[in-house]
Amino acid sequence: MGLFTRDIKTMDDLFVHTLQDIYYVENQITKALPKMIAKTTSSELKQAFETHLKETQNQIQKVEQVFKMHGHEPKGATCPAIDGIIEEAQEIMGEVADKDVLDAAMLAAAQAVEHYEITRYGTLAAWAKELGRQDCAKVLHEILEEERRTDEKLTRIAESRVNRKAA
Amino acid sequence: MGLFTRDIKTMDDLFVHTLQDIYYVENQITKALPKMIAKTTSSELKQAFETHLKETQNQIQKVEQVFKMHGHEPKGATCPAIDGIIEEAQEIMGEVADKDVLDAAMLAAAQAVEHYEITRYGTLAAWAKELGRQDCAKVLHEILEEERRTDEKLTRIAESRVNRKAA
Repeated sequence: MGLFTRDIKTMDDLFVHTLQDIYYVENQITKALPKMIAKTTSSELKQAFETHLKETQNQIQKVEQVFKMHGHEPKGATCPAIDGIIEEAQEIMGEVADKDVLDAAMLAAAQAVEHYEITRYGTLAAWAKELGRQDCAKVLHEILEEERRTDEKLTRIAESRVNRKAA
Repeated sequence: MGLFTRDIKTMDDLFVHTLQDIYYVENQITKALPKMIAKTTSSELKQAFETHLKETQNQIQKVEQVFKMHGHEPKGATCPAIDGIIEEAQEIMGEVADKDVLDAAMLAAAQAVEHYEITRYGTLAAWAKELGRQDCAKVLHEILEEERRTDEKLTRIAESRVNRKAA
């Protein structure tokens, strides 16, 4: 169990709590992506999700590295935001029969996850810098750039193929 | 009550459902922002939240306009993702005593909300275009650009003042 919000007193506590939040998020994504890979009928989307799964596994190791640099054991803190995003996606995945509509919905869900990660890693990198942890900021910034590239890739797929097909 | 996910069969249904999702989101934000305005001790942040509240009220009217253009009555569909983001923010707002740490946490929460809106309006604008609704896409794109500008403004505040003070 991660740091409780009632234990947050300093910027350092807030940083560690948010690191625990994103660690939980990354772990939830590794559970959600295989279901999306199994559900999609678009080879382009399948490949994008598979690449993203590998990246996520690598990002988990990087987040663990940041925990250790900062003198903490890697722990997750339940994040209701990502639970909500995944819950919404799974609801739609369970209900939509049309393959192309389903692909469009999964693509949108994946982008919602990416944007959650982009905002959190952006915040974490800024806070690490303010706390004088340039070493942590560097790693967090690397992950941020990876998430941005993934989102851009998903936007290209959305614009070029899945949505046009589905409509 | 909005469209249930089990009623989603076509891209048009998915578009309307996601419009109902963002309509609920905007309405939840108008309830959350006044609490954040009351809590912050940063005049810069207070002003940013006040501006954002006015923008949100205006965006609600724009979303209602899109509903009507597309022949639907404006309705909200519960969005667990935004409920999760706001729940997390309120938990931290209720627990953190230090004013500067609280400001940093509220700023991060506001950016998480912005990114959720950016991803949803991006998706909605793309889907509107694919459905041949250039009129809806235009309005959705206007809101998207406003959300992006708000997020950039929050990033500038985060980088320049609150975080530095809090650390």
